[in-house]
Amino acid sequence: ESATPLRSRRGGRRGGLERGRQAAETTSPDGRYRALYKDANLWLTRPGESASQAITTDGSREHRIKYGTASWVYGEELDQRTAFWWSADSKRIAYYRFDESQVKDYFLAYNALDQQDTLNAEPYPKAGAPNPAVDLSIYDLDSRRTVHVDARDGKPLENETVGYYLYDVRWSPDGKELLFNRANRKQNIVELAACEPATGRCRCVVRESWTPSWAEIHPGVQFLKDGQRFVFTSERNGYRNLYLYDLTGRLLNPLTQLQSDVDSVLRVDEAAGAVYYMAHDGDNPMKLQLHRVGLDGKSETRLTDPALTHRVQISPDARYFIDRAEAHDAAPTTRLLDEKGNVIDTLATTDTGRLTALDVTPPEIFKYRAADGKTECYGTLYRPTHFDPARRYPLLVDVYGGPEFNSVNESYMGRAFDGPATLTELGFLVAAFDGRNAAGRGKAYRDPVYCHLGITDVDDQAAGVRELRKRPFVDPGRVGIYGISYGGFASAMCLLRYPDLFRAACAQSSPTDWRNYDSIYTERYMGLPEENKLAYDAGSALTYAANLRGRLLLYFGSADNNVHPANTLQLIRALQGAGKSFEVQVGPDQGHSSLNSDRMLEFFMDAFGLSGASH
Amino acid sequence: ESATPLRSRRGGRRGGLERGRQAAETTSPDGRYRALYKDANLWLTRPGESASQAITTDGSREHRIKYGTASWVYGEELDQRTAFWWSADSKRIAYYRFDESQVKDYFLAYNALDQQDTLNAEPYPKAGAPNPAVDLSIYDLDSRRTVHVDARDGKPLENETVGYYLYDVRWSPDGKELLFNRANRKQNIVELAACEPATGRCRCVVRESWTPSWAEIHPGVQFLKDGQRFVFTSERNGYRNLYLYDLTGRLLNPLTQLQSDVDSVLRVDEAAGAVYYMAHDGDNPMKLQLHRVGLDGKSETRLTDPALTHRVQISPDARYFIDRAEAHDAAPTTRLLDEKGNVIDTLATTDTGRLTALDVTPPEIFKYRAADGKTECYGTLYRPTHFDPARRYPLLVDVYGGPEFNSVNESYMGRAFDGPATLTELGFLVAAFDGRNAAGRGKAYRDPVYCHLGITDVDDQAAGVRELRKRPFVDPGRVGIYGISYGGFASAMCLLRYPDLFRAACAQSSPTDWRNYDSIYTERYMGLPEENKLAYDAGSALTYAANLRGRLLLYFGSADNNVHPANTLQLIRALQGAGKSFEVQVGPDQGHSSLNSDRMLEFFMDAFGLSGASH
Repeated sequence: ESATPLRSRRGGRRGGLERGRQAAETTSPDGRYRALYKDANLWLTRPGESASQAITTDGSREHRIKYGTASWVYGEELDQRTAFWWSADSKRIAYYRFDESQVKDYFLAYNALDQQDTLNAEPYPKAGAPNPAVDLSIYDLDSRRTVHVDARDGKPLENETVGYYLYDVRWSPDGKELLFNRANRKQNIVELAACEPATGRCRCVVRESWTPSWAEIHPGVQFLKDGQRFVFTSERNGYRNLYLYDLTGRLLNPLTQLQSDVDSVLRVDEAAGAVYYMAHDGDNPMKLQLHRVGLDGKSETRLTDPALTHRVQISPDARYFIDRAEAHDAAPTTRLLDEKGNVIDTLATTDTGRLTALDVTPPEIFKYRAADGKTECYGTLYRPTHFDPARRYPLLVDVYGGPEFNSVNESYMGRAFDGPATLTELGFLVAAFDGRNAAGRGKAYRDPVYCHLGITDVDDQAAGVRELRKRPFVDPGRVGIYGISYGGFASAMCLLRYPDLFRAACAQSSPTDWRNYDSIYTERYMGLPEENKLAYDAGSALTYAANLRGRLLLYFGSADNNVHPANTLQLIRALQGAGKSFEVQVGPDQGHSSLNSDRMLEFFMDAFGLSGASH
Repeated sequence: ESATPLRSRRGGRRGGLERGRQAAETTSPDGRYRALYKDANLWLTRPGESASQAITTDGSREHRIKYGTASWVYGEELDQRTAFWWSADSKRIAYYRFDESQVKDYFLAYNALDQQDTLNAEPYPKAGAPNPAVDLSIYDLDSRRTVHVDARDGKPLENETVGYYLYDVRWSPDGKELLFNRANRKQNIVELAACEPATGRCRCVVRESWTPSWAEIHPGVQFLKDGQRFVFTSERNGYRNLYLYDLTGRLLNPLTQLQSDVDSVLRVDEAAGAVYYMAHDGDNPMKLQLHRVGLDGKSETRLTDPALTHRVQISPDARYFIDRAEAHDAAPTTRLLDEKGNVIDTLATTDTGRLTALDVTPPEIFKYRAADGKTECYGTLYRPTHFDPARRYPLLVDVYGGPEFNSVNESYMGRAFDGPATLTELGFLVAAFDGRNAAGRGKAYRDPVYCHLGITDVDDQAAGVRELRKRPFVDPGRVGIYGISYGGFASAMCLLRYPDLFRAACAQSSPTDWRNYDSIYTERYMGLPEENKLAYDAGSALTYAANLRGRLLLYFGSADNNVHPANTLQLIRALQGAGKSFEVQVGPDQGHSSLNSDRMLEFFMDAFGLSGASH
């Protein structure tokens, strides 16, 4: 999900690509050619032949021009995993050009575990700094001609130009046009654009904007069989709904007008004139429901039980569904449903006998008010087995807290079999809170975090803790928090901004001052530093260094090329300057990573006086 | 002192030069020219004129050839603070050439406290790696000719060639020859050599060698007025003695044949035919004594009281001395002595009334046996004021422990007014031990540490602790150790190799595996890694990671270009691999530095259960 670019990806990206990188070669659909990236240029070869033909020649490391690969920030923040695209008829190939001459390198020492280390130098645009200049071109294999895509309609590459960023490149189904998204630097205007490959001329197909904060960066596009009509997702009415368009840019009709967010389109059944999709409109927004609506926007129907969350497979003829239904406190059941949602048969149920025997109980999901006193939020609370409400337990908050991310979910047992189990069995309560940063609650729900990273989101974590402190079994003097990446930032901010609520924090691979993070992610949520200095100052952990009262453990990987170690180093310096004591752990040659969990457990057990020596 | 190249120099070198660097320009003795280093070449200018003339032209960053500046390791380990040398008549200038093409760069990220960091890339020869190739040339200003100094007498630049390293370059007093020292890679053979500037031919003047370990790298040379004879210091008989030579290489006569080390030559009084010097031959080797000996080597006389250590100024006519005498337990007295050492008058005494009132007492200096069971060593013990021998105190060892370094000294109060005061007043005993690494005890005394760094020296620290554990007021369960640089290494090694003796260590800016440190220092004391793998393994802290039982605090500066952060990172990785818990602190953008002392105090107070909250 591009919505969580800061989230630690422990196993790396699927497909073996390093963070922020693109595939280096692809074969044409007809199998006759291979396009590949090499030495800053794009090349064509024929399988089995060693000779290769240069499609571009002026790519150069020295001049910092490159073709057929994307600048790092496009891979990381715009999710670009390819940088050249074959048309379906194999006659044309479109490709990226990046000019990084204005982008400063960021330097890291890699391989400190070897006698001789190595240098990692990456053009990395920090917030507010010059970005890579992006362009698109199309090469025609028959004519050997290259056409420059006039992606900005002749306008200059300036912050305000819708076309400052170009991404989500792909060919239209009939191969007649090259489609892409284009956005302004603020990322509050996004256009789906189409280019005529013979001339490079472009036109806007659909324009979306959301001026109170940021626009949806990757609106969904799903084509119908005619290759002209498509189902488009838009948040223009404040919720993520579906609209039927054609490539001329004509809105044929809205498909849905829910007051909740559509999650995904499962199937367009053109024969039956119906669209099947999932939406966040169960008893609570975490419970996904299957819906059907006509292609004419009529006969909107929910087909599933709103008391549960559902994962659905649709039969090829769309007359049956296999529905896996569950909730955090309801074990999964898999059933065969007919097209009206009636149960035909139960295919599988869950035997919870062992869990009961072990006294493993589901978490509690509860509502609380955000720090604004009115917005309804959700939290989860995990308890140890053999929980005794007469005792007082230390509480740990597991936080991410970044924009458009959810920590509370309706999977059975929540995440009790993943992270928190060890923590709870050692005697901690573990909680997670979705504040106004959360996804799935409509567009306006998240607007308060715009230009308030580390403020609104952190206030809502604190509000969650205040809610739980009302329970007599929560020890208010022993509340800790931990997280990775944005969650590390949120952990540090909670400890520093709410020293009365939080007594210990483990902040891992944390951004600490948004001026240190990359342009595309940071500016999307914080605007430009020169226009929002006060917001950047208020959202910097460094600002609050003198507030430290509780225990703080900072972790960074020495080879973190995403959230640079400088973030933690700057916070360390600020804390040292304020005469504060804190702890540090380092991951030698580790990238964007987490502290090993044993060390973190030890930290909290020590901080809160739990003995682990006998384990 | 070149003997302590690893020692932290908090204020940087005197003269504002960065570690390992040389002065960039010097004016000729006659004031007519300025020679300066610029862009990898050596240039001549005339003061007031903007034009400059290149003495060398093929220096190039790209080809890694440089003139008029020294490769980093020559500045750091051979103490070369200039890289070009004017003859006294201003007619010639000699200069270094370095070819670093075979030397690998080591990379560090600097300025992490800024939004944009910077790169530090330095040709840094690690132990066993290819070294910079050194050469000397002489430029004649009148003829504009350059003569290459045949410093290796035509022999190739190989490890065994005496001339593998060239350093200590200077002109003979009459300017007729260029003098320099040359050594083989092992540094157990050192020659004082002389070059005829017209031809570049060289000859050996004096050859020194010490095959059981390493030779004295910088033998002293002090010329007499004729510019031909000189007083030479040599350790050839096992102690540092003085010899009278002339430039033909003829030994005129030995001046001293002490069984203790000469410290320094204070004055050569040619009129009286006498040499005044200081030697380590008081009641113990830390007590320096003034001596006089005839230039003929006769009438050797000690002129000072061996119960004290002395700092002496000699009057211009050498008939009187001002002697500042003291001992660790005897307050300084300054007296005027006559030429026979008789006291004429007392010039100043120390009022110790306030110290007595505060109950500040001098440290104790005591003898103990080294780990070999026979070598006599010295230690110092600092006690708190109001010391109560009936109590049990935690003990902290302040360690450096590197070759040719002394921690025990006879200055009044030792270093009680410097480091240990805070520690002792907080309730710690503080000790320092000089094991077989110490200087001033003769050449053979130190041979056992050769190829045994981290073994012999650390064994002798442990022996010191065993000695102090005999005292009932030392709490054997609360012994800690701390140090910087080599002292950080020794701290970690003590904790890991003697887990029964040491319960806590604070290791700061530590080398952890000698393969990570530079060629010249490391190989001098450890030989070449490929010939001494077992010694390098045995002397690596990583080898003992699984032994960790006590508390360990590791510190490094992120910009340490001397003992690279990789040292600590590698130890961290080894400890993590062994499943060990430990603490870390980092100095953002700090070089070869120490942890702030408050943080260290806090660590030991916490480890040993001392409360500091009320302070």
